[in-house]
Amino acid sequence: MDFMKPETVLDLNNIRQALQRMEDTIIFYFIERSQFFTCPSVYKKDVFPIPKFDGSFLDWLLSQHEKIQSQVRRYQAPDEYPFFPEIVQPSFLPKVNYPPVLASYADEININKNVLKVYVDNMVPGISSGSGDQMENLGSAAMADIDALQSLSRRIHFGMFVAEAKFRNETEKFTKLIKNKDIKGIDKAITNTAVEEKILKRLLEKAKTYGVDPTLKFTQHIQNKVKPEVVVKIYKDYVIPLTKKVEIDYLMRRLEDEETT
Amino acid sequence: MDFMKPETVLDLNNIRQALQRMEDTIIFYFIERSQFFTCPSVYKKDVFPIPKFDGSFLDWLLSQHEKIQSQVRRYQAPDEYPFFPEIVQPSFLPKVNYPPVLASYADEININKNVLKVYVDNMVPGISSGSGDQMENLGSAAMADIDALQSLSRRIHFGMFVAEAKFRNETEKFTKLIKNKDIKGIDKAITNTAVEEKILKRLLEKAKTYGVDPTLKFTQHIQNKVKPEVVVKIYKDYVIPLTKKVEIDYLMRRLEDEETT
Repeated sequence: MDFMKPETVLDLNNIRQALQRMEDTIIFYFIERSQFFTCPSVYKKDVFPIPKFDGSFLDWLLSQHEKIQSQVRRYQAPDEYPFFPEIVQPSFLPKVNYPPVLASYADEININKNVLKVYVDNMVPGISSGSGDQMENLGSAAMADIDALQSLSRRIHFGMFVAEAKFRNETEKFTKLIKNKDIKGIDKAITNTAVEEKILKRLLEKAKTYGVDPTLKFTQHIQNKVKPEVVVKIYKDYVIPLTKKVEIDYLMRRLEDEETT
Repeated sequence: MDFMKPETVLDLNNIRQALQRMEDTIIFYFIERSQFFTCPSVYKKDVFPIPKFDGSFLDWLLSQHEKIQSQVRRYQAPDEYPFFPEIVQPSFLPKVNYPPVLASYADEININKNVLKVYVDNMVPGISSGSGDQMENLGSAAMADIDALQSLSRRIHFGMFVAEAKFRNETEKFTKLIKNKDIKGIDKAITNTAVEEKILKRLLEKAKTYGVDPTLKFTQHIQNKVKPEVVVKIYKDYVIPLTKKVEIDYLMRRLEDEETT
């Protein structure tokens, strides 16, 4: 997949390959996060007074990282969406002239607020190695959170490429569903249960393989990393449904663009 | 290992376990970096004019990240050393009162300039998936560099804990070597060839295991990630020797502390 060549981006095989590669990244960041406790103080407002900032420790750290990274064009890339769009800065690098692939409103579809909430409420407890704060590890835990969140966000917003490819493959069918505001019908049209089951099976294998030092496999000293079934559950309950939400949000507006172009 | 409990930090078994766990992190960041080309523009000065900054694109991005992360106490931790010490900021978080484990001059031992040089000159060419710039991936390559560099730096500076533990176990022997400024003798005393060979064997297994999607293992479509023998060579030629350099630098000053306490 090459974002400079739109035809490669809208090839469903390439999209699936990219999503498959992202699984490795996401699992690995979960494994990194699993070194720490839940660290609830990271996610609560006002535990630590932060100068000139209203939000949690993680909000501060994540927004500061986005501020830096926006200056090297992170959020100009068609597959990156910020958690704090209001903090995005201009870049000192020359602009990359990405050829348009998605509809013009794509940048307005950003469900990172959901991603953040679901991550903190539902993923962190399953991934962490214990409950409670470890005061000297708050920064490390939050740094691992940022990596995990950014990779989850990318995966979930990739749904727009899936949606655009599907729309172009079956334009007539989707046009009808969208005109009828048939969300259930769209949901059905974008769901491929066999593919989803294959993803979950693959995740189980990957999490088992990447989560254990291979040279310790046959000894008693297996390291405690993230539980493979937790990774599967996170994908089943949150990653896949949120990706579909992005697909549906994107498709519901897809005729706006047809009207204007 | 718990930095609040010095006896756990100076236990050589705990140190080895921590170093072993870091291998997974380092290999994984290499795998992430292997998605991109060498991208030489990232490492050269003056390719892109950066406002109010004299250095490469990577220098800018890394120093900005350190500036943020220092504010959440990253460089107060005894196992973290900045690449740009001059940019470190005070933290708004309460100070963690780490009990002293290392000698008082430990913060002055920082070989990150070497780490950065060796990484750019000798590691990036081996890890990257191709030669040359990919203009739209410079930011992504540099972000992967930062993760790899920070994990390498932590691993290499961990040599100080190794050195301190060895000094305490064999104080008399090391005192004599240090007094005689016998660098060769110290090098010999801290070298355990059997352990080093075990590390390299384990790295080969890990890089093979983590670098391939396990569900594709028996098909033709194996993804091209980082070459296992490259990871082994990097450890053999750079990571292990640089860790030893840290150990020696630390030990050579070790009697200063004895005199003052």
